[in-house]
Amino acid sequence: MTPTDPIATLATLIRCPSVTPAEGGALSALDALLTPLGFACTHVTSTEAGTPDIENLYARLGTEGPHLMFAGHTDVVPVGDAAAWTHGPFSADIADGQMYGRGAVDMKGGIACFAAAVARHIEKHGPPKGSISFLITGDEEGPAINGTVKLLEWAAAKGERWDACLVGEPTNPEHLGDMIKIGRRGSLSGTITVHGTQGHAAYPHLADSPVRGILQLTQALMDPPFDAGTADFQPSNLEVTTIDVGNPAVNVIPARATASFNIRFNDNWTADNLKAEIITRLERAAEDGVLRRGRPPVAYDVVWNERPSHVFLTRNNGLIASLSGAISVVTGREPKLSTTGGTSDARFIKDHCPVVEFGLVGQTMHMVDERVAVADLETLTAIYETFLERWFDNAAA
Amino acid sequence: MTPTDPIATLATLIRCPSVTPAEGGALSALDALLTPLGFACTHVTSTEAGTPDIENLYARLGTEGPHLMFAGHTDVVPVGDAAAWTHGPFSADIADGQMYGRGAVDMKGGIACFAAAVARHIEKHGPPKGSISFLITGDEEGPAINGTVKLLEWAAAKGERWDACLVGEPTNPEHLGDMIKIGRRGSLSGTITVHGTQGHAAYPHLADSPVRGILQLTQALMDPPFDAGTADFQPSNLEVTTIDVGNPAVNVIPARATASFNIRFNDNWTADNLKAEIITRLERAAEDGVLRRGRPPVAYDVVWNERPSHVFLTRNNGLIASLSGAISVVTGREPKLSTTGGTSDARFIKDHCPVVEFGLVGQTMHMVDERVAVADLETLTAIYETFLERWFDNAAA
Ligand SMILES: [Zn+2]
Ligand SMILES: [Zn+2]
Repeated sequence: MTPTDPIATLATLIRCPSVTPAEGGALSALDALLTPLGFACTHVTSTEAGTPDIENLYARLGTEGPHLMFAGHTDVVPVGDAAAWTHGPFSADIADGQMYGRGAVDMKGGIACFAAAVARHIEKHGPPKGSISFLITGDEEGPAINGTVKLLEWAAAKGERWDACLVGEPTNPEHLGDMIKIGRRGSLSGTITVHGTQGHAAYPHLADSPVRGILQLTQALMDPPFDAGTADFQPSNLEVTTIDVGNPAVNVIPARATASFNIRFNDNWTADNLKAEIITRLERAAEDGVLRRGRPPVAYDVVWNERPSHVFLTRNNGLIASLSGAISVVTGREPKLSTTGGTSDARFIKDHCPVVEFGLVGQTMHMVDERVAVADLETLTAIYETFLERWFDNAAA
Repeated sequence: MTPTDPIATLATLIRCPSVTPAEGGALSALDALLTPLGFACTHVTSTEAGTPDIENLYARLGTEGPHLMFAGHTDVVPVGDAAAWTHGPFSADIADGQMYGRGAVDMKGGIACFAAAVARHIEKHGPPKGSISFLITGDEEGPAINGTVKLLEWAAAKGERWDACLVGEPTNPEHLGDMIKIGRRGSLSGTITVHGTQGHAAYPHLADSPVRGILQLTQALMDPPFDAGTADFQPSNLEVTTIDVGNPAVNVIPARATASFNIRFNDNWTADNLKAEIITRLERAAEDGVLRRGRPPVAYDVVWNERPSHVFLTRNNGLIASLSGAISVVTGREPKLSTTGGTSDARFIKDHCPVVEFGLVGQTMHMVDERVAVADLETLTAIYETFLERWFDNAAA
């Protein structure tokens, strides 16, 4: 490998079949690339009962501050219908200026470009005026239990501290330079169960339909909207993801109905006061038929499904300015500072240091024929290299 | 057996374990009782692919009009938890003035009383001035495919015609004499499927949630009420009996949602114009978000689940007056002329002649410890006997 060449590095990484939870040789290949550049590499295997063991990699160059972290993952989602791929999903074939392969944009490509940018920086300026670390996990696309969270804990426990982090996930909707992510909405999920009284459909007064109750409660969650958006975020949005009764008998009023919901929430809310708002809506809806129709209140319970993802927003001007300036200089584009989309591992990193996300164009991620324009690999490497210069200059100033 | 004694006859019938589809000896016992009274008995076995063969009985006394039919069933529902019965479910034990056994009120008791009434009538007056038939099936509590419908078709095909019918189902909520059923609501069922577009819960604008659609459509079916009731019937009522999505992934907006509904409808409606009203409501609801919120119309389809039960109402004053007069004379009660409750085999008989329903007190039907007050058997026999006199007198006048 020539570490300054992102194309060669990406081809090597794509040929490692690292579908979660398999390491597939990808972390070893990265180690082999970084060690000659002066990085100290540590492989950290994370384990947890009931989940597969996961290999992760932490690599640091330098011992002093300021300390910049690059975060990412070498694991990839399954190839899907392998026969439908134009080129093998682990082939790294190049055709019409595109390199094909699972992980090309999500996100082996981002890792290859950052490694190339570091190599070029060292070639031109010598070692950085501070430290650079790679925090690379093998469990981002899976349950994400043995990945970033544990690797961060492990590093922090041995004294690692960072001043800023760049996550190399694909953030651009169409063109390289479109969009930086500077925050993410939070995510909260729950399941409601309504308890009714079973009965015959011909005698509804002797039964108490939980279907009516679940409709009343879910309607109250969907309307009105939770907010109209904030200066930095789009509106919070709740989706009822499933409603289930499972009653096969058309003559029978069932005893139970359940519904699950997921809400993506902005910085108007914390997970706690959002839960309180949801419970207020449910309580009000449960009582709704009592006065208007003389019905008993809806009997229900709510279970919150998982630890919520908290909302975050990065306001570190030096970090954002270094990155967006580098993008403008290299591409001529003014990147949008966005907080849209799903959650990412940045939600864990933000507890340790300011974090932004910028990588390739995401259009083909998780799809058959995932691919990256070879030209974009050169451009992203140039952006990352310029970012490194600006960030260290800014941090030293 | 002493045919004039309903208690002896009911004990004999209860001891026949005729849980659908088993004949259990019940129809043979009835044949043995009716033949000596002069009835011509025919056993008709009905068959249909995919269902058990069912034995039915048609017994006629006399050859001339007017012709009164008594309709019922000797099959019974399963005993449930046999160990929970105070007396064996096929024992016909008498304790504290109650005879215990599956079918005691639903409806071997009604059959025993009507047979006793006929025997007493013959004893006092000789053969009736016309004809009396028993149309007794063994498939009322089961799928009801090889029961009343086929037996009626068979009899009509060989030239049988009736002037009136009394169904001996338990119709009284609390006391013998409370209630005659003179009609029944219709029943119509359907299943709606809403087709959405699957997607990630964080990107709702790229997906189209079928949950929102199914809520919109089912809400439109439930509100406003279809009518406020009629002179003879309670309001039509629609129940959404199930809603199902089956989406286990909280981050995913699903592609499909289904809901089933059952409507019990009164004589404001025919099955056909009710279907038209439901389709109008669904169409309007499907378009509802288009103007107000700029959403695409809800994509859905409806499947009507089964042949509807048509609404019916008996307006034959001679039949109703004979029966309610007999009840008043014997019990001192003015029976309510009701059209409430579920469907019954009367819905098939009404295509052949006017039909009413009157039998025992239904409180313990289908339950553990099904039982009948021995005194009620005497009283019901007296009512049926008085009814026979009045009906034939009225028909002759
Ligand atoms: Zn990724
Ligand atoms: Zn019955």
